[in-house]
This record gives sequence, structure tokens and C-alpha cells, in this order.
Amino acid sequence: MRGLFITLEGMDGSGKSTQINLLEAYFKSRGAEVVLTREPGGTVIGEEIRSMLLNREYAEMAETTEALLYAASRAQLVEEVVRPALAEGKMVICDRFLDSSLAYQGIARELGVERVVSINDFALEGLRPDLTIFLDLQAEEGLKRKKDQKDLDRMEMEKVDFHRKVSDAYRFLARQDSARILQLDASQDQEEIHKAIVERIRKTFTDGP
Amino acid sequence: MRGLFITLEGMDGSGKSTQINLLEAYFKSRGAEVVLTREPGGTVIGEEIRSMLLNREYAEMAETTEALLYAASRAQLVEEVVRPALAEGKMVICDRFLDSSLAYQGIARELGVERVVSINDFALEGLRPDLTIFLDLQAEEGLKRKKDQKDLDRMEMEKVDFHRKVSDAYRFLARQDSARILQLDASQDQEEIHKAIVERIRKTFTDGP
Repeated sequence: MRGLFITLEGMDGSGKSTQINLLEAYFKSRGAEVVLTREPGGTVIGEEIRSMLLNREYAEMAETTEALLYAASRAQLVEEVVRPALAEGKMVICDRFLDSSLAYQGIARELGVERVVSINDFALEGLRPDLTIFLDLQAEEGLKRKKDQKDLDRMEMEKVDFHRKVSDAYRFLARQDSARILQLDASQDQEEIHKAIVERIRKTFTDGP
Repeated sequence: MRGLFITLEGMDGSGKSTQINLLEAYFKSRGAEVVLTREPGGTVIGEEIRSMLLNREYAEMAETTEALLYAASRAQLVEEVVRPALAEGKMVICDRFLDSSLAYQGIARELGVERVVSINDFALEGLRPDLTIFLDLQAEEGLKRKKDQKDLDRMEMEKVDFHRKVSDAYRFLARQDSARILQLDASQDQEEIHKAIVERIRKTFTDGP
């Protein structure tokens, strides 16, 4: 199997981390090398950008600034981590990527999908995920799961209405690009979700059954 | 006189700071309120981005990341400082702005002027300087003046050939947009340069002689 670039999307609390760990184990069991990374962040420069983006004290951050900082972190991740790993035939699994910007900044913040795609085209220079898993969870449920875990960051502090817009945005994006984005009900059993992801990968990227 | 947005461009060491101070004094002597700012930076968020951009330890920074971080700082400055000040009729004088990105990232780094304009269109949402002063200095002379002053930052550490490209880029931009960009020989006496700037402002933006 060639190196694949797989991204996971969905609300905080939708179970992305669990599915990333299950997927990593699956690939390793088949002898593949796996690189796990996340956005924003994943590089020294990206993690510094991440801490700015999630800093609760930056309430004054302009929406355009926010979108450009996500794109900057993404550009660094692509150049420093994703492209080199794929070139070496590794599997790259990334917790959030392009679709987070389209959903959060493009749609929920109402900057416009086209405009946010355009600054990301600059950052990605043609790269797109081979497969994107969207773990679909009701906004209220995601916030409840998350709130139990830790203090909320700048993005999580947004009102429930904002998170509802994000959920709707992900569903819209999944309908628009169903060839790349696999939408799964995040309220299912984790093992069931994992099986559905593996099935899609086997069907799309390998010859075997 | 209505609020004007004036930017100063040119190599480090070309005398921008001196001209900014002279221009501030001129506007104040005519009763205008003046806001001085700089790029990257000028806001709390922008200054944090600036420290990343100039950090000598970030040798691995991707060129796309660099361009997006400059645009992010600019977006914040525009929303937080420039637009509000202009709306109140103030003069805004900014040390570096859009043309720095076009010259350094678009041309000298070879990302392409069109591509860098496009991410800046996202950041600026239609705003452009009313007037841009380009202080034209030979690259070698600028570096010499600068080296005497302090330790070099990440951008200043670039080879002389890079700074020569930047100088040429500014000259190209000034030819392309001579209606907005006033190119002046930076090796002239500072008072002569100031007089030429004031003359252009009086001619372009006021009715008097």
C-alpha cells in the first residue's frame, strides 16, 4: 500500500483521538509506518501558532487573522511533516486539517468557503487528503463530552449556536465532496466506527477484499 | 484634511524611521492626530507574530508559512488599528505594509506577486495605502548601515543577493504603481527627502499650493 494522507474531522469530543489510535494500530499491524500529527500544530512553529489561536486572552483576534494563522500552521505542517512522510511511503494521520478551516472560518464565521479555500490553496500547493473521516456528533453532545475533560480554550468558548453551525457546515462539506469525505455517526460504538473506516480504506486504496 | 493611510517601504537602514518622525511632526504641526504603527506587529497579537517571524531559531520556516504570518499580522493591524483610526479622521503612518510582502515574499522568495496579493486581499478586504513612500537604497549600503546597529534578525540574516533582489523588487513595484508609490533616493539629505514627501502629500491630498 502506498503512503496515504488521512485526516479526521469533527467537533471536539466526537472521538477523533480514539479513532486515530485504532487506525494507527491497524496500519501498524499491516506493516506500515505511521506518522500521527495534529492541527493547528504538529511542528515547533505550528505549536507556537496553536498556542496563539487557542489563547483565551486573545478575544480581539480578527476572523481574518484567525483564518490566516490556521493556514500558516498548515503550510508549515505540509512542508515539514506531511510531504516528506508521504514521499517515504508512510501513512500520515492528521487530527483536523483543511475542512476544519472551511467549517469553522469559512462557514461558521461566515468568511466564505471560496475565500478560505483560496488562502489554503496558497498553503497546500495542491495537496489534499486522500481520505477524510468526519465523525458526526450533535453539537450539544460534543460540548458536554468535552466540558468534562478540561478548561475550554478560545475556540471551545464559543456559544453552542456557533458549534451547531460548525456541525451543519461539516455535513454540508461531506455532501459536497463525498468522494473524499466519509461521514460517520459518532454516537455509534467506537469499534463499529473503526470497522467502517477500515472497510472504506480497503475498498478505496487496496485491491484486496 | 481627511485621514490618510501612509506607508513607508525600503530596506532596513534606508531611513524609514527618520522620515516617519519628520512626517509625524509635520502632520501634528498642522493640527492632525497621528497614529504611528509598524509591521509586522503593531498589535499584541501582531507583535507575537513578529517575534516568530524574526526569530533566528526558526530557520525551518516554510516560505508559504512566512507569507501567511505576515498577512495574519497585517489583518489584525488593519482591523484593530488602521480602520478605526482612519474612521476617526486620523493620519496613520505605518513602517512597512503590503509592499514588503510583495517584494520579500512575492518576488525575492519567488512565491509570485499574484499569489501573495491574493492572500493579502483576504487580509485587507479592499484597504490600500493612500500613499506609499519607497526609500530606495543600494542593498549593500542598507546592510552596512544596519549591521552597525544591532544583531541581525532572521530576515536580515539573508545573503546580500537576497537583499539585492528585494531592492530590485521594490523598484519594479514602484514602476508598476507610480500613482500610489513615491520612489525617493534614500542617499539624499533627510530634510530633502522629507520636503519631497510633503510636496507629494500637498499636491495629491489637499487643494492648497
